[in-house]
Amino acid sequence: MRIFIVHAHPEPTSFNGAMTRTAVSTLTSAGHDVVVSDLYAMGFDPVSDRRNFVTVKDSLVLKQQAEEAFASERNGFVPELQAEMDKVAWCDTLVLQFPLWWMGLPAILKGWIDRIFAAGRAYGGGRMFDRGVFVGKRAMCSVTVGGHEAVYSEHGVYGRSVSSMLLPIHHGILAFTGFGVLEPFVVHAPARMSPEERQASLAEYGERLLSLEVAPTMSSLRMADYEGLVLKSASPLPFSGPPALRR
Amino acid sequence: MRIFIVHAHPEPTSFNGAMTRTAVSTLTSAGHDVVVSDLYAMGFDPVSDRRNFVTVKDSLVLKQQAEEAFASERNGFVPELQAEMDKVAWCDTLVLQFPLWWMGLPAILKGWIDRIFAAGRAYGGGRMFDRGVFVGKRAMCSVTVGGHEAVYSEHGVYGRSVSSMLLPIHHGILAFTGFGVLEPFVVHAPARMSPEERQASLAEYGERLLSLEVAPTMSSLRMADYEGLVLKSASPLPFSGPPALRR
Repeated sequence: MRIFIVHAHPEPTSFNGAMTRTAVSTLTSAGHDVVVSDLYAMGFDPVSDRRNFVTVKDSLVLKQQAEEAFASERNGFVPELQAEMDKVAWCDTLVLQFPLWWMGLPAILKGWIDRIFAAGRAYGGGRMFDRGVFVGKRAMCSVTVGGHEAVYSEHGVYGRSVSSMLLPIHHGILAFTGFGVLEPFVVHAPARMSPEERQASLAEYGERLLSLEVAPTMSSLRMADYEGLVLKSASPLPFSGPPALRR
Repeated sequence: MRIFIVHAHPEPTSFNGAMTRTAVSTLTSAGHDVVVSDLYAMGFDPVSDRRNFVTVKDSLVLKQQAEEAFASERNGFVPELQAEMDKVAWCDTLVLQFPLWWMGLPAILKGWIDRIFAAGRAYGGGRMFDRGVFVGKRAMCSVTVGGHEAVYSEHGVYGRSVSSMLLPIHHGILAFTGFGVLEPFVVHAPARMSPEERQASLAEYGERLLSLEVAPTMSSLRMADYEGLVLKSASPLPFSGPPALRR
């Protein structure tokens, strides 16, 4: 198994750092290949615009998607983006490791998506969901959050689970591009854990990682049910219940 | 009325650009004060870490929230962040102008939130929702999306409305810090509009902006209903139906 971990935390000694070190040692010991992009350590620039390209389709007006599609056909991405695209193409499973900041991805990781998942490379021409570019690959969010679990429930101030908060990422980014989306691994309030609790959580994460190949993925869409990106009238609604799991 | 527009699009001649120019001219003509932060034009850096601070609480281990709280007490933010914090403090209404990229904020704008909404300045010490720092201010997302409205419905491939996709932003960022959250202004597929349709959409946006002071805001939480960030047992669930509007 080839695992690509995109790591987005500024402090190496953080719990996120410990999780990625656990992932590398656990997976490597089990005979898997692991590649890590440590975005802060790399000084990754998350701003998406003309800086993405060595090619220029229209020098007067920037239409980002059109420039992306143009660059996709001409090997026109700057080397630091091409290198990340190559890692995504290489892997069987993509792991996004991040602290939940403001209910979403830290900007450095959001910009990694904005820039790497370019039109022509990650989608385009009807390639999405079960016809997506990354069909056959799996993806998982590995997330730390500051609050306890109850705070992320319908009775908590956030009103919904971390998994619900991740829905735009799960559905709109990962499933959209064809990944089989695994349930996220969520760690609550690591800063308030005892050393024993930290070790137990890291051990649980290690076990979870070893099941990446066989764990169920969330249900996605079948594009055959859609016409013009809208459900054909005869098809059942795909989101009528809680997210189903399938093997 | 004092309006602060945070603008996040790399191309000045884009529809987003036209929207912000419309906003400035419409609101200024009506006697309001408008300030714009054009993040791409400013070269805004969205990466949050030690670069945010001139102060240092702990030089060995970076705990971002602790450094933010420390800097808040000592005027310890770098000038480019302090300037943005001052604009937020100044305004009555905050407008986030952006294209929906991967169902969320472009990284340059996500990082503006990550860095500007610092612990100690935008939240902390129980200040959240109706006890939030920005209570009395209003906020609105003004968003362009690539697809037609049906694609963002329960029958479309995205499975939900743009407004639902914005929930982590509306609830987790804006309502959390105390803003009264206005319904988003959403423009579908501006690139495929005729010149007449573009003008009509911009005119509609201008009218919407002139109602910012009186438009209803989405329902938020009353912190008195919560204890330890979890609902007291006697209180009704706040999220049991579609988002309600109130004046």
